Amino acid sequence: MKATLEPLLTALHEISDLGRARALLAWDERTKMPLGGAEVRAEQIATLTRLRHLRLCSDELGELLDRAAAGLDSAPRDSFEASLVRVTRREWEKARRVPAELRAETARVSSIAERAWEGARERSDFAAFLPHLERMLELKRRYVECFDAERPYDPLLDDFEPGMRTAEVEPVLARVRDGTVALLAEITERPQTVDASCLYGEFPVERQAELARELARRLPLESGAWRIDETVHPFATGIAISDLRITTRFDPGYVGTSLWAVIHEIGHALYQNGIASELERTPLCRSVSLGFDESQSRMWENWIGRGRPFLAHIHPLLTERFPERFAGIDREALYRAANRVQPSLVRIEADEVTYNLHIVLRFELELELFEGGLVAAELPEAWAQRMSEYLGIEVPDDASGVLQDAHWSSGSFGYFPTYTLGNVIAAQLWEIVRAELPDLDDRLATGELTPLRDFLGERLYRHGGKLEPAEMIERLAGGPLDPEPLLCHLRQKFGEIYELA
Amino acid sequence: MKATLEPLLTALHEISDLGRARALLAWDERTKMPLGGAEVRAEQIATLTRLRHLRLCSDELGELLDRAAAGLDSAPRDSFEASLVRVTRREWEKARRVPAELRAETARVSSIAERAWEGARERSDFAAFLPHLERMLELKRRYVECFDAERPYDPLLDDFEPGMRTAEVEPVLARVRDGTVALLAEITERPQTVDASCLYGEFPVERQAELARELARRLPLESGAWRIDETVHPFATGIAISDLRITTRFDPGYVGTSLWAVIHEIGHALYQNGIASELERTPLCRSVSLGFDESQSRMWENWIGRGRPFLAHIHPLLTERFPERFAGIDREALYRAANRVQPSLVRIEADEVTYNLHIVLRFELELELFEGGLVAAELPEAWAQRMSEYLGIEVPDDASGVLQDAHWSSGSFGYFPTYTLGNVIAAQLWEIVRAELPDLDDRLATGELTPLRDFLGERLYRHGGKLEPAEMIERLAGGPLDPEPLLCHLRQKFGEIYELA
Repeated sequence: MKATLEPLLTALHEISDLGRARALLAWDERTKMPLGGAEVRAEQIATLTRLRHLRLCSDELGELLDRAAAGLDSAPRDSFEASLVRVTRREWEKARRVPAELRAETARVSSIAERAWEGARERSDFAAFLPHLERMLELKRRYVECFDAERPYDPLLDDFEPGMRTAEVEPVLARVRDGTVALLAEITERPQTVDASCLYGEFPVERQAELARELARRLPLESGAWRIDETVHPFATGIAISDLRITTRFDPGYVGTSLWAVIHEIGHALYQNGIASELERTPLCRSVSLGFDESQSRMWENWIGRGRPFLAHIHPLLTERFPERFAGIDREALYRAANRVQPSLVRIEADEVTYNLHIVLRFELELELFEGGLVAAELPEAWAQRMSEYLGIEVPDDASGVLQDAHWSSGSFGYFPTYTLGNVIAAQLWEIVRAELPDLDDRLATGELTPLRDFLGERLYRHGGKLEPAEMIERLAGGPLDPEPLLCHLRQKFGEIYELA
Repeated sequence: MKATLEPLLTALHEISDLGRARALLAWDERTKMPLGGAEVRAEQIATLTRLRHLRLCSDELGELLDRAAAGLDSAPRDSFEASLVRVTRREWEKARRVPAELRAETARVSSIAERAWEGARERSDFAAFLPHLERMLELKRRYVECFDAERPYDPLLDDFEPGMRTAEVEPVLARVRDGTVALLAEITERPQTVDASCLYGEFPVERQAELARELARRLPLESGAWRIDETVHPFATGIAISDLRITTRFDPGYVGTSLWAVIHEIGHALYQNGIASELERTPLCRSVSLGFDESQSRMWENWIGRGRPFLAHIHPLLTERFPERFAGIDREALYRAANRVQPSLVRIEADEVTYNLHIVLRFELELELFEGGLVAAELPEAWAQRMSEYLGIEVPDDASGVLQDAHWSSGSFGYFPTYTLGNVIAAQLWEIVRAELPDLDDRLATGELTPLRDFLGERLYRHGGKLEPAEMIERLAGGPLDPEPLLCHLRQKFGEIYELA
């Protein structure tokens, strides 16, 4: 370790500790906190966020970066030292471009807008949310102006996909859209032969919780490094590489939520758990990007968790716990039930095929808001138009339409495309996995998941956030972001299920 | 609010938020954290401790204090403004007297010594702990030298009882010792007529947990402002005035732990819960001192929880849940069982009479270590001598003798006397409670505890840490710290139980 790196590392450890302490405050708020703690908790989180930010954009950190950078010319780009200085400098520069006043105002408005959104969604009243959304858009436009970007959407996307440009993402999502719309048209022309009714009915929450714990134990997370709790909205968060918090929810009328939501969140946790310990307490201790993070939750949820081999492995878990519901449901029937395609209104309930259309719709509306002529007041109409065009369904109200997601109320424009990028990357990665682990299906069928985890760990997880998404895709797949493996996967899988030509 | 106070308040809110975030990290570590998180968690806690301390002893805070103090001359001593400036300046001055190097070294040695103590206690091997204890004593002597104190023990005591001198505490504890030794001699001369066997036997942990929750619901904590979890060592901590975390443990062979340990911790929580909301996120949002804090856990545990009226109220809770164990045990038999006096080796298992002798013993040894000629190597012998003298029992090994408590390994010299000060203060306060709430016993017997809580809240809780212990005792009792009410209470209560002359 170079002596010039040590003071930088000390400063970065502090910044990391503040960030992870904040993550614990947020986890606790959503899982354990007595209701009475809410008001002070918001202040505590705001303080830690502010103190962390002040350190991140300080002159002092800039000087530490300059000193650490001197003499690193010969270090390889993906070395710990070079990556640390490069990634930290990138964050430092971004943090310094945004005035403290704009940041504080955005936090303030977002907290008000989130509450307004909750109320508006309950009453399905977009008009009540509109002024808050307009104010938020105004602030985000000011945010965009802080950067010298080619396109207004670039800085928004960059917050979640470091270094990625709108011009790279737009054609990929357009191709996913066109390919999916075509596939969906073929599927919906066929009779609906997939019966998912075994997943619906009465599933006592206590037994679902036991199923979730058993499932979690069978996925290859480091033992003694995670816990699972119940929340309204499932999420995964990391307090350290070996301190991962997964949450889930249980729907007494549908067993699928606890099943695939658990696998999804564990996918996120597996990625965090696989980061090299050298990167702990540094800005490199994270995934490459939100898209890459989502690629792992999606890969574990859909490619593995809804695939034939692993479903064969977990089929007994279901039949043992819910014998009456799964009487006569063999592995193949479970596989088909887990993969029923049915256009629907709500993103988080969407199947593997239609999911990306929900995302493309949101991405296109965001683009038009920031780069086209769309104004916020026109969103419900534009939403309904695209739902009809892409998914062939009518939107009955704002609650199940434009008001369904929290993202815009908190100002997270640029976030939505990362969901589909995650699917695109998962498909690209899965082709490599299949090519390099020839006995994969046998292992999935016996629940032997460690070799797969180790392979992903070696290629992806352990590198944390050293590389940018485009670099990592190039390194993994030998080429750029490519939507064809995803479309190919969907056509193959659902073509067989729905007996397409 | 004066304009000069606002910047000070902003700085103090940040310091408080860092401290409470650290408290949550510590609570989580002991109740929820996966084992894998331990190493990084220690770093996270150390970082928040350091950042909080740096802010507390900063030049900037000194300037804010100077500016806020100007123009406060006419503010009453117990006003929010005057108390805030005075108490903060006291903490600021104390923090600045101790070199960062000494503080860091003490934290480092304490973490090593705590681990060494655990191992030494397991093997009952004082010699293995001795070098760590000697190193810790050396550091604490250096700590003492940072202050211009009358007596070496003063700065140690002052950390837990702000402003209190050894000279004030020493005669009070000596009087408690002499009075208790005399009372105990009378009790042990009488035949042991108290049968506590109903509290021992098989008590399924699940049903004890249910009992603890029911008990907690009946104590007058604000609803939605607390939670109860299981730990090896019970404790109470506050993340906010309305976010209190109580822990307990369940001994499958003894129901008393879950019962009175829960009431004890809730006593602490009731105090925190009663602090005026104006004091939230400031240095005033705490109890007067550790002794005052303990006065409330002890008052709720012993004066209320082991008193006849409230035991009559909770008698049905026990008989309903453990009918076989409490068959034939009426209220009076339960009262006697709850108050059996029996000298024993271990402080945390001691009864109400002998408890203070365990404390006086430790206090006297601490005094001799810092002010007399006692050296650490002589501790086991000095311990055994006093155990024999005060409690009439022989110490068979170091594990149940000098190694039983963690306090010294973490450098918490000056902490022990606060336990007995708590009992002294509780007795003084209880005399006022009895005088001013004439229908108290009737209310306790029907479980109507809100009037008592509100009385204590008005007189004590709501003022938080505005006043120093001596001032608060004077204000409450119209006189100084006085051991007589405690001795009087013990003689009356146990004189009746053991039929003394």
